[in-house]
Amino acid sequence: VSSQNIDFLNTQLEDLFPADIATILYQLEGPEAHSLIRLLDTEKAAEVLSNIDSDDRKKFIKEQFTVEEISKYVNLFDSDDAVDLLNEQSIEVREQVIALLEDREQARFIIDLMHYPEDVAGGLMQKELIKVNISDTVSDCVEEIRAQAESVDKVYAVYVVDDDQKLRGIVSLKQILLTRKNTKIENIFEDDIVFVDTTKSGDEVAEIMQRYDLEAIPVVNALGRLLGLITIDDVLDFVKEKAEEDIQVMTGITGEVDEDDSVWLLAKARIPWLVVGVIGSLMAASVIGWFEGTMAKVAGLAIFIPLMASTGGNVGIQTSSLIVQSLAEKSQISLSLGKRLSKVIRVALINGLVVGILTGIYVYAIGKPELFYVVCLSLFSVVILASFMGTITPILLDKFGVNPAMASGPFITTANDLIGIGAYFGIAYLLLPI
Amino acid sequence: VSSQNIDFLNTQLEDLFPADIATILYQLEGPEAHSLIRLLDTEKAAEVLSNIDSDDRKKFIKEQFTVEEISKYVNLFDSDDAVDLLNEQSIEVREQVIALLEDREQARFIIDLMHYPEDVAGGLMQKELIKVNISDTVSDCVEEIRAQAESVDKVYAVYVVDDDQKLRGIVSLKQILLTRKNTKIENIFEDDIVFVDTTKSGDEVAEIMQRYDLEAIPVVNALGRLLGLITIDDVLDFVKEKAEEDIQVMTGITGEVDEDDSVWLLAKARIPWLVVGVIGSLMAASVIGWFEGTMAKVAGLAIFIPLMASTGGNVGIQTSSLIVQSLAEKSQISLSLGKRLSKVIRVALINGLVVGILTGIYVYAIGKPELFYVVCLSLFSVVILASFMGTITPILLDKFGVNPAMASGPFITTANDLIGIGAYFGIAYLLLPI
Repeated sequence: VSSQNIDFLNTQLEDLFPADIATILYQLEGPEAHSLIRLLDTEKAAEVLSNIDSDDRKKFIKEQFTVEEISKYVNLFDSDDAVDLLNEQSIEVREQVIALLEDREQARFIIDLMHYPEDVAGGLMQKELIKVNISDTVSDCVEEIRAQAESVDKVYAVYVVDDDQKLRGIVSLKQILLTRKNTKIENIFEDDIVFVDTTKSGDEVAEIMQRYDLEAIPVVNALGRLLGLITIDDVLDFVKEKAEEDIQVMTGITGEVDEDDSVWLLAKARIPWLVVGVIGSLMAASVIGWFEGTMAKVAGLAIFIPLMASTGGNVGIQTSSLIVQSLAEKSQISLSLGKRLSKVIRVALINGLVVGILTGIYVYAIGKPELFYVVCLSLFSVVILASFMGTITPILLDKFGVNPAMASGPFITTANDLIGIGAYFGIAYLLLPI
Repeated sequence: VSSQNIDFLNTQLEDLFPADIATILYQLEGPEAHSLIRLLDTEKAAEVLSNIDSDDRKKFIKEQFTVEEISKYVNLFDSDDAVDLLNEQSIEVREQVIALLEDREQARFIIDLMHYPEDVAGGLMQKELIKVNISDTVSDCVEEIRAQAESVDKVYAVYVVDDDQKLRGIVSLKQILLTRKNTKIENIFEDDIVFVDTTKSGDEVAEIMQRYDLEAIPVVNALGRLLGLITIDDVLDFVKEKAEEDIQVMTGITGEVDEDDSVWLLAKARIPWLVVGVIGSLMAASVIGWFEGTMAKVAGLAIFIPLMASTGGNVGIQTSSLIVQSLAEKSQISLSLGKRLSKVIRVALINGLVVGILTGIYVYAIGKPELFYVVCLSLFSVVILASFMGTITPILLDKFGVNPAMASGPFITTANDLIGIGAYFGIAYLLLPI
């Protein structure tokens, strides 16, 4: 960003959307990115900042911005985004920025919102919204919209409250536009609406908004007073993050890490489940150790160890992922445990038969017919046992309030490795003349 | 649903939201559900039907509804939902329903939309939208909204077109509400807007709408003519389905199945990757078979087979899932392959060291110090090799247009089982005095 081209750059930037400018910033070094932000008019700069990834923004702001600058931009943020940005800063910076805010209403909004945990409705809502009293007329309502037009950029609907600030319903802009100016709001508003309490979890809010196809949902306190609004874009981010989190849990990564985090953070996020896997395998090693004598006597017994372990793992993950998926769809009726198990076992019988036949052919092909019954029977048992584990594990985790996606991860693979190997040697011990 | 209580039931149902009535339907038998639908007024019944899951609705409609009934409800659907419902029916039913539609504009919309594949912008859009000519005034615009108010229930914005029907921009309802009636649209509209072409993939549409925080996005044809509108609720469903699909791919399930599909369908969806897993394990069995003599001579060699296989699998999945996640975030800058690999290998060095030390302790604890170098060196190599595979597999799949999530599934586990066992016996062969 050389100083001569500033004018040219400025015209270029004016035509870009804030989200695109944010993408350009990712490619620049800190000081360059900072000069670029300062080229923009304050409002656009604020929008760009609200579009940057939380981790990157935290670092960028810490290294480049003074508290005065931060407060200038935060002044123009929606209150929920302002709180997100401030929560990334140290407590001292946070307090200084709030003290410096020109818009005192914004400061009050922010202080209000900071009381709520991040992942409940209270922490997701913004304070900016347009409300009218139930006894007002349509033209009062238009005036209210005009008055709020600057601080509220997207108007989803106008919320109707009574004298106690209790939420009574909504009026759509379409309705306001099509109704005569002196009509009373109480004659046209819709009282049959969906709202949530500040304590509702983010998951539930996302579920509700999807269920009723809402672009925005009002948030009320325990007394039913209207406090704020959650918009669909925040919920969409929430749904995406949740899906990413589930995938990380399933693949044995703890904590939220990205490819661009430090080597140390990445290694640390992966260690816990790797260690669990190693411990499981060493337990399997001990089991195999007990049967070393048997293996020495019966040639070929050792070669099927990976088959038992990996089939157990694969079947377990397949089964549990379907159960996890159906647990996540809370709006639908869930089957009873008995029906679930009976179905899972029937599926396992079919699949056990297919892999059993395939393996049986191999056993004959390598000329070890004496192992036929042991290998096929063990494999079949492994498929059944792993299906059973894959069903009850997520259900139990869900019951104890743990994310059931964990059941589709290294936990089930490790458990089923062990079960597979145990079943194999157990059956070998019973069936072979040792 | 006994006949006496119809009046009571009716009052109860009137108070419920369509999505909630849909949930009640899931609990009823077909004929009961059908009587319940007929109790509702046509508009509400149509909304309830548009809220039912595709699979359940297909069965329900096929078993219970006449074509006359279907067309009565489809008449009131948004055009995109109407196409979804019709695509679930047989071709004959589809044609009969379209022929019976009272609203001929709806019929034309539906026929138009049926040309597009389901997963591109054309297939996601609805035809219902409000547009005005650029030379109109604000009061023309209000008249247009009034005229369309019945067929368009949610007004996102008013789209501005020129005489050629080319999309020129948008006007928000807020703007219309706050501007004098005789102002020309051309003086107040926003020309800096985001739109998509009918051929844009659903993934990309979702990405764009999230990027720019849009509640609705206009769809144009190759000539820039305004054809339709995609709304955020459809995109949210799309994002959710995509996440579910990725998880199924990762867990080795082919095709989209739910827990409530038939036993046969469930078994079939799981067979392909189970068979791949079995074949991989039998190849591993062959590798182990070559070293049977070695195992007989060196006591304890067999017991670490599961450790090598499962560590390879776990590391591979952890690595690939982070790569897949960062491939999915297209808006951010991706690292070069060299930088990616160098980082992955550094993480692998740390993790290899941790699991190596843990295993080394075990080797001494069970009194097999002669295996120390072989086991630790193999394990360390397995971690490095599996990390390498976990990095390049998703990148290659992505390059060839395959969903890279496949790389976090049974494919990588199977490959890494084999690599792990191969590396283990290879190193044993080199280091042990055999």
